[in-house]
Amino acid sequence: MIVIMKPGATAAEIGAVIRKAEQLGLKTHPIYGESRTVVALVGDLTGINRETFDVMAGVLQTLRIQEPYKLASRSTRPDNTVIDISGVVKVGGTDLVVMAGPCSVESRSQIIEIAQAVKEAGATILRGGAFKPRTSPYDFQGLGLKGLEYMAEAREVTGLPIITEVMREEQVQMVAEYADILQIGARNMQNYGLLQAVGKVKRPVMLKRGISGMIKELLMCAEYIVSNGNYNVMLCERGIRTYETATRNTFDLNAVPVLKQSSHLPVVADPSHGTGLRELVPAMSKAAIAAGADALILEVHPDPDKAVSDGRQSLTLEEFSSLMVDVRRIAAAVDRTLATLPAAQPA
Amino acid sequence: MIVIMKPGATAAEIGAVIRKAEQLGLKTHPIYGESRTVVALVGDLTGINRETFDVMAGVLQTLRIQEPYKLASRSTRPDNTVIDISGVVKVGGTDLVVMAGPCSVESRSQIIEIAQAVKEAGATILRGGAFKPRTSPYDFQGLGLKGLEYMAEAREVTGLPIITEVMREEQVQMVAEYADILQIGARNMQNYGLLQAVGKVKRPVMLKRGISGMIKELLMCAEYIVSNGNYNVMLCERGIRTYETATRNTFDLNAVPVLKQSSHLPVVADPSHGTGLRELVPAMSKAAIAAGADALILEVHPDPDKAVSDGRQSLTLEEFSSLMVDVRRIAAAVDRTLATLPAAQPA
Amino acid sequence: MIVIMKPGATAAEIGAVIRKAEQLGLKTHPIYGESRTVVALVGDLTGINRETFDVMAGVLQTLRIQEPYKLASRSTRPDNTVIDISGVVKVGGTDLVVMAGPCSVESRSQIIEIAQAVKEAGATILRGGAFKPRTSPYDFQGLGLKGLEYMAEAREVTGLPIITEVMREEQVQMVAEYADILQIGARNMQNYGLLQAVGKVKRPVMLKRGISGMIKELLMCAEYIVSNGNYNVMLCERGIRTYETATRNTFDLNAVPVLKQSSHLPVVADPSHGTGLRELVPAMSKAAIAAGADALILEVHPDPDKAVSDGRQSLTLEEFSSLMVDVRRIAAAVDRTLATLPAAQPA
Amino acid sequence: MIVIMKPGATAAEIGAVIRKAEQLGLKTHPIYGESRTVVALVGDLTGINRETFDVMAGVLQTLRIQEPYKLASRSTRPDNTVIDISGVVKVGGTDLVVMAGPCSVESRSQIIEIAQAVKEAGATILRGGAFKPRTSPYDFQGLGLKGLEYMAEAREVTGLPIITEVMREEQVQMVAEYADILQIGARNMQNYGLLQAVGKVKRPVMLKRGISGMIKELLMCAEYIVSNGNYNVMLCERGIRTYETATRNTFDLNAVPVLKQSSHLPVVADPSHGTGLRELVPAMSKAAIAAGADALILEVHPDPDKAVSDGRQSLTLEEFSSLMVDVRRIAAAVDRTLATLPAAQPA
Repeated sequence: MIVIMKPGATAAEIGAVIRKAEQLGLKTHPIYGESRTVVALVGDLTGINRETFDVMAGVLQTLRIQEPYKLASRSTRPDNTVIDISGVVKVGGTDLVVMAGPCSVESRSQIIEIAQAVKEAGATILRGGAFKPRTSPYDFQGLGLKGLEYMAEAREVTGLPIITEVMREEQVQMVAEYADILQIGARNMQNYGLLQAVGKVKRPVMLKRGISGMIKELLMCAEYIVSNGNYNVMLCERGIRTYETATRNTFDLNAVPVLKQSSHLPVVADPSHGTGLRELVPAMSKAAIAAGADALILEVHPDPDKAVSDGRQSLTLEEFSSLMVDVRRIAAAVDRTLATLPAAQPA
Repeated sequence: MIVIMKPGATAAEIGAVIRKAEQLGLKTHPIYGESRTVVALVGDLTGINRETFDVMAGVLQTLRIQEPYKLASRSTRPDNTVIDISGVVKVGGTDLVVMAGPCSVESRSQIIEIAQAVKEAGATILRGGAFKPRTSPYDFQGLGLKGLEYMAEAREVTGLPIITEVMREEQVQMVAEYADILQIGARNMQNYGLLQAVGKVKRPVMLKRGISGMIKELLMCAEYIVSNGNYNVMLCERGIRTYETATRNTFDLNAVPVLKQSSHLPVVADPSHGTGLRELVPAMSKAAIAAGADALILEVHPDPDKAVSDGRQSLTLEEFSSLMVDVRRIAAAVDRTLATLPAAQPA
Repeated sequence: MIVIMKPGATAAEIGAVIRKAEQLGLKTHPIYGESRTVVALVGDLTGINRETFDVMAGVLQTLRIQEPYKLASRSTRPDNTVIDISGVVKVGGTDLVVMAGPCSVESRSQIIEIAQAVKEAGATILRGGAFKPRTSPYDFQGLGLKGLEYMAEAREVTGLPIITEVMREEQVQMVAEYADILQIGARNMQNYGLLQAVGKVKRPVMLKRGISGMIKELLMCAEYIVSNGNYNVMLCERGIRTYETATRNTFDLNAVPVLKQSSHLPVVADPSHGTGLRELVPAMSKAAIAAGADALILEVHPDPDKAVSDGRQSLTLEEFSSLMVDVRRIAAAVDRTLATLPAAQPA
Repeated sequence: MIVIMKPGATAAEIGAVIRKAEQLGLKTHPIYGESRTVVALVGDLTGINRETFDVMAGVLQTLRIQEPYKLASRSTRPDNTVIDISGVVKVGGTDLVVMAGPCSVESRSQIIEIAQAVKEAGATILRGGAFKPRTSPYDFQGLGLKGLEYMAEAREVTGLPIITEVMREEQVQMVAEYADILQIGARNMQNYGLLQAVGKVKRPVMLKRGISGMIKELLMCAEYIVSNGNYNVMLCERGIRTYETATRNTFDLNAVPVLKQSSHLPVVADPSHGTGLRELVPAMSKAAIAAGADALILEVHPDPDKAVSDGRQSLTLEEFSSLMVDVRRIAAAVDRTLATLPAAQPA
């Protein structure tokens, strides 16, 4: 249930609604939108009358939310959520954000070199994996803490905020100390312990759709994070498993408009994992923007054939630069502008 | 195997290659591209030496084609195939073509009204179903011949070429008398008798990907048509069956760049069937153009809720007009122009 | 709608119901079950009152059938349909029937040799393909009419009825002259023209589930045949397309109990195509019987590695003989007996 | 790489092989099969010569294992792994084991009542969920520790070992104190931190296939457990996500023979989750045994419509008893016997 406050409702009126709900055993989530303030109530609603709240001062109306996800639903919050990334860029507004970097951090010089190159081409967030979930226990599992340190150095050198994956509950605190955005990988979409853990830290989170995750499930998983107090969640489409083998996964771009219509959370598209094939990334990046994605996340590597992981889907630096030219044109055709770094940013 | 002729090869030299191949029991398909002429040889190639042809006058080189589809492969013909639709529009070149109309022809006035409206908004081909493949034997099966006649009338009134589905071998001749483009529906993608039949007529064909067709299979089915002599084949992505239920089908836009890279045949995107939901059609239409589609095919109905079939995925006339404004912008951002009807066209 | 007659209803009473329905513009299908006679009415039922029939002499009650398939539904006919195959074996009763033979008929001696061997091991129907639907237009397309003649010879020699595929409407009459059972292949499950054509001949039909056919669609396709007058339809599970690659297809054995519960038509399991791998066929054949299948159809070849098609999934004659020993044991554990040929059968 | 010891190899000879491998930086896993002892070597094998081990005393030969899973591969260990469950039953031998119980532990009396009933009908392991992974954060999440205590009480009363799910790394120690078998749920198949954690305890583990897990991935996930030192892993097929909606999941029985052929680990079938529909469970339970499963895990509830979770797929006690009669017959037809509790067991 959500309680929608009148435009001029006072803090005291909102406070009264919250106290009343808590007396009834409910959890409350006040959501301060541009157009209205809403108090979302979650918990056992059987026996709770809407009239209880309807008659309170400052209340416009109450609504029952049909969707199984409540706080992530656009019914609860009609405005887009715009997430501030360490004061550098905003995801979910009119700016289009490009995150780029290697699949795995391989060395200090590798990540710094790539960071500089992708920044020059127009990326405003650096991606890179320090902890790698690998199908085989015998494969390279990432540089770990060392990788985080290298990424932080690359940030210092370029001013780019960094996004990196956190795989286990016990790593959340540590990764949150380094990263500007915590990535939850596809294999962990339904790792509820991990979702709850990142729901309790202050860092923005990018949640990837599982390889066979239904769009509705992705929203419910976002709800696990948001209902723990972290509202800064981005949803990421990264390809699903189907029968088709011409692509590594089936990049399901339909998820972009479905998510934008169902939820106020920003949507990120990952054509690198989505297709798994470098030669398809440019076309599908452009398509993702045209479909309404708020951001792209792209794998870039100076020498993809020598990458320790996922080389087949990484763009070269030249391909990435060339794509960014096209990205700007498509963005303009849907009334968006490529995000830029603040002027005073060290480089 | 393909025999690539030298730029200045004479008709006599090409003729000699063809006769030699036929003596060896092979079928020959000469393909006259802009940049080169190629003679494709199909049949039992065991025991055929490339040297036999390499030494002939006017021959540049011979190549074995790895793909199981030969004539449809871009290796055989690097230039795009551009299909002339009854002298009115061309599909596969720089023009972007929009085909629009109702799922089913319902009446004379309905199809004429829609034809006029979609023409005004910028469509240059009229779609409409006269023979409808229906899951249940008890559902509306289309107006049949009457539907074809109404479509022909709508063409006379508007000048728009028409595309309509042919379901059975024995209907091919009749439908080809009325339609400018023969559509092979998803359920018939692997109806080889039907493919061979449309391969023997002179009309362009639009072949839809089956609901679980692999991209490679779609190309092999195109090969069934092309190898029977009809080179004017468009490939259409229209959504595949996956586990996801947020959309009726999973519109697999990845197929667009994969097909463009693998084949010289034009690619059409059908976001109406692809997504099955009207509210997703605008976003996915724009995405399809950004991904490189040569044409869109869209369902439009003045009153979708009253449509006899597929109303859930049909745009209203207003939605269609509004989408066409966006389509022009995205097309420009990928260096394409919306096709227009010839000036002298009656209206 | 179905009209259920009282146990003692007379032919005149049944006739009166049929005439009344036809006056109302409906098609009628009288179904004479063991326990009751039912008249199924199909067509436009809006405005038809159940009371019209309820008050007629000999009528027990009328029922509206919820399922989109009517005549194929178990609600319409609670008894199992038992199909007599040329007076030799019955499919759908307590006998368990095994159909076996090569994927393609390759020669006269090949099919006769295999027929004798599978008969000896306990098969009672011979399978073999004369017309082969092939993904590539350049692959072996079957021996055609010659293949039918060889199968007919094998039947004469062994007394085994034969099942073979019919691919095109125009072949139906010809194939029906040779075959005891007409097979509709997976690619043609929704080739409605072909379904209607086999609905009008007198031969039993085995309808294979399409590679991405939903179980409900399979039943609707059976309805296309049955509503044209041919009630002798078997439904065949042969594997669906999923993301899993450890098997060629995912043999969906769940379809067996679902179909047995939803419909009165016999169910055949095809573990050869279902799994695509010879080494899985024995386990899945046993599982299919335990799940309730009425028949198995198995590919057997004396030298699978040399088979012109589908060798990877064909059992050797020895493997088939050995499997038949296990089949008998499992059949007994679910109270079924392996079918046998009539004593007087020539051999 | 595996080093196969001669039949009469001494402990000293085996020890020498292990020390040599460790000197070379490899991890070693000695596997004592009935027919032979093998030392599996994992780690970076580049530059390691097979000859180094071939010449050592007691060594028969060395083999490189092709599969990406090594220790779980049947190439490494041809004998079936037979897992002793707390000295009460054995899984993976000729005995067929049935695990049964409710989806969730709901109360002390509920779990004890069900335990007694399923024991009487022939089950030898009690299942029940204390920690429940739920799609929505607002759904019932299980009784937690209380649930574990109730299950332990049910074990004391009946003598049945218990299996229950562990969802998070930090719960592993606690759950291992109560449970005889740790279950890893489908959503956690690729939660590598959790897999490593259960690899380090002494309890047998049942690893469920993810809802879109490939069979090969399931084996790699088992490898994560086994390579951490816990060899007592059962693999569980529980249904995969496909396009079909007639069943909740597509129970992929083909996985049973594929797993039995690829690996020496026992295979458990879960037709309750596999199909999601109570009325399909009996047919698919029988099929699973016929296909070669070593155990069944079944949901049973005295009043399924009132179950707090998964009632739609739970058998009633009567249905379970009735199914067990059939289970015994099918087991006998594949030369297996239903496991029984030790005679001295308290009841």
